[in-house]
Amino acid sequence: MKISELSTPAALVDIARMERNIARMQSRMDSLGVSFRPHVKTSKCVAVTQAQIQAGARGITVSTLKEAEQFFSAGITDILYAVGITANKFAQALALIRNGCDLKILTDSVQSASAISAFGIANDVRFKVMIEIDTDDHRSGIKPESPQLLEVAHALAAGGTQLQGVMTHAGSSYDLNTTEALEKMAEQERSGCVRAAERLREAGFSCPVVSVGSTPTALSARKLEGVTEVRAGVYVFFDLVMHNVGVCETDDIALSVLSTVIGHQEEKGWVIVDAGWMAMSRDRGTQKQTRDFGYGQVCSADGTPLSGYTMTGANQEHGIISRTGDPDLSIVSRFPVGTQLRILPNHACATAAQFPEYQALSSDQNIQTWSRFYGW
Amino acid sequence: MKISELSTPAALVDIARMERNIARMQSRMDSLGVSFRPHVKTSKCVAVTQAQIQAGARGITVSTLKEAEQFFSAGITDILYAVGITANKFAQALALIRNGCDLKILTDSVQSASAISAFGIANDVRFKVMIEIDTDDHRSGIKPESPQLLEVAHALAAGGTQLQGVMTHAGSSYDLNTTEALEKMAEQERSGCVRAAERLREAGFSCPVVSVGSTPTALSARKLEGVTEVRAGVYVFFDLVMHNVGVCETDDIALSVLSTVIGHQEEKGWVIVDAGWMAMSRDRGTQKQTRDFGYGQVCSADGTPLSGYTMTGANQEHGIISRTGDPDLSIVSRFPVGTQLRILPNHACATAAQFPEYQALSSDQNIQTWSRFYGW
Repeated sequence: MKISELSTPAALVDIARMERNIARMQSRMDSLGVSFRPHVKTSKCVAVTQAQIQAGARGITVSTLKEAEQFFSAGITDILYAVGITANKFAQALALIRNGCDLKILTDSVQSASAISAFGIANDVRFKVMIEIDTDDHRSGIKPESPQLLEVAHALAAGGTQLQGVMTHAGSSYDLNTTEALEKMAEQERSGCVRAAERLREAGFSCPVVSVGSTPTALSARKLEGVTEVRAGVYVFFDLVMHNVGVCETDDIALSVLSTVIGHQEEKGWVIVDAGWMAMSRDRGTQKQTRDFGYGQVCSADGTPLSGYTMTGANQEHGIISRTGDPDLSIVSRFPVGTQLRILPNHACATAAQFPEYQALSSDQNIQTWSRFYGW
Repeated sequence: MKISELSTPAALVDIARMERNIARMQSRMDSLGVSFRPHVKTSKCVAVTQAQIQAGARGITVSTLKEAEQFFSAGITDILYAVGITANKFAQALALIRNGCDLKILTDSVQSASAISAFGIANDVRFKVMIEIDTDDHRSGIKPESPQLLEVAHALAAGGTQLQGVMTHAGSSYDLNTTEALEKMAEQERSGCVRAAERLREAGFSCPVVSVGSTPTALSARKLEGVTEVRAGVYVFFDLVMHNVGVCETDDIALSVLSTVIGHQEEKGWVIVDAGWMAMSRDRGTQKQTRDFGYGQVCSADGTPLSGYTMTGANQEHGIISRTGDPDLSIVSRFPVGTQLRILPNHACATAAQFPEYQALSSDQNIQTWSRFYGW
């Protein structure tokens, strides 16, 4: 099978780039002296995750219990479910633990902590629990200095649980784009999470794990004193949002969508391709960044970026490609019907999610099909 | 199974609303004297499509050949593949036809028309072909008055094909929001497509089918003289974009995402739910409309809209719900952890695509699971 024989749209993974991305992150974590626990929500693919583990990752992070189930079935046992759990998911978590999964769960409220504890006692199990810390105001978690932190720890101490530690995710790092700001955010993430751990220890709680991370902060942190593990997800593929943040180049982006030219609107300088938003996703993450890539950066079939050409519009199964600035009125002869084009995505997690499988290209141009899953 | 027992996030379909939407459209088409060919890209679900056919639909429209294969396997034979076809998809289309599918394909260029013709001759098959007409400048197709129209018809006449007719889709109707503008666009869509058919007939070509449609124009057309069939997709579920266009009310919206409150940021007036963009999709279709619903309108578990509450932010598996205007500082007591909320989506086609199945609620509160498919 060659690229030219693939049915389109297709999600291509450039294996050499992916392995370079994995090696870069792992070597950074090794030199910073921390464990690395990749977030597998990006790929939802066993082949990708195995490559991360082979490179040195210790355990994985998941965003759904379905991911935990799928990767546990594939033989991975050390799993952190990094979304606050509620009672409606306790039975599913318990089943994983009963089957031998070393599952860690997460909470940021007394109400949930008490419910976990009560369910643990009732089912004679000790849930391993992390407390979520809010270090950047962007989403969930408890502020490092909040009285709530100790209240949650006390609620967990009622039984049925084992406090593992604290974790935070400085997701607002996605909004930054200078080395200085990224380093500052990485330090804010580190120091806030370490401070929360210290408060717990000062109050007499055991807090062995201090877990931080996002792709931008993981690649920007200058020191990680007090941190035991780092998490990151999108680095494995990278994307245009990460390019704009400044933590990768376009030739690090390992995921692209292969599409075929199906028509033109010559007087507008438009190429129409068979990859619309169903393939690219509706993610417009670069819209508010310094460089807006529309629905994606256009590349030739071999992956070379075509300067100035972006996917400027998307319907469900139609993508509209045009040139920035003056329309390209010779677009019909430049990209005839049947031409294959690769599109680099704004957000790899969102684009990958649209596909049941990846077409993984090795450097000798062999293609393997890697399945991925979706849903909850 | 009750709603309270469903695992979240879940894609709920309110069957009574869906059937009302189907009946409304079918009765409109009946009174306008045209066939109705629903676009099944919205649901990608056999149960939904069967309800449309039972109500009187004649054939279906698909956006991918995978949809054609799936619905043909389910016993539906009259299928229009409404995206311009290219050579890399000919073998797949041929296999469907050889197996008995009454497939119609689409083209808008001499290059594609000639390729279809040559492939048809080489394989001793007559492809039924529609010519795509551009009546609103929004995407693909040939202008009704363009010389290219007859050139394409001549290219098809070389053999291996049978010209079925013309089709157009006035997708720019999604950008409108007044009755006057919608009626005008419906007439523009009708008259442009009918004009293209007339030109073909004047040139001696048979052109039995004149196919038009989009949900807004189908629900706005006052007359459809010269049109033989109408297509529409999203009307089956409706959504907030269609609400803003003005062709449905929020209590017509048959698709919603059931989510569970997993936490709060009390001082910001935020509820965090377990439906993020992976569940809602990244579609922000209401962003540029007169009323921006963020990532969706929040409703109670029974489907009652909660005025002023929208999903204002979304990460992969976290949704952030807040109140328009002043933050609701009593949000923790109003929506405790574990509360179920339904979220009405911006764009039903995009949100539905995130789920492997629907949870279909009948009016007696029974729940059936309807599977849907994805990919290409």
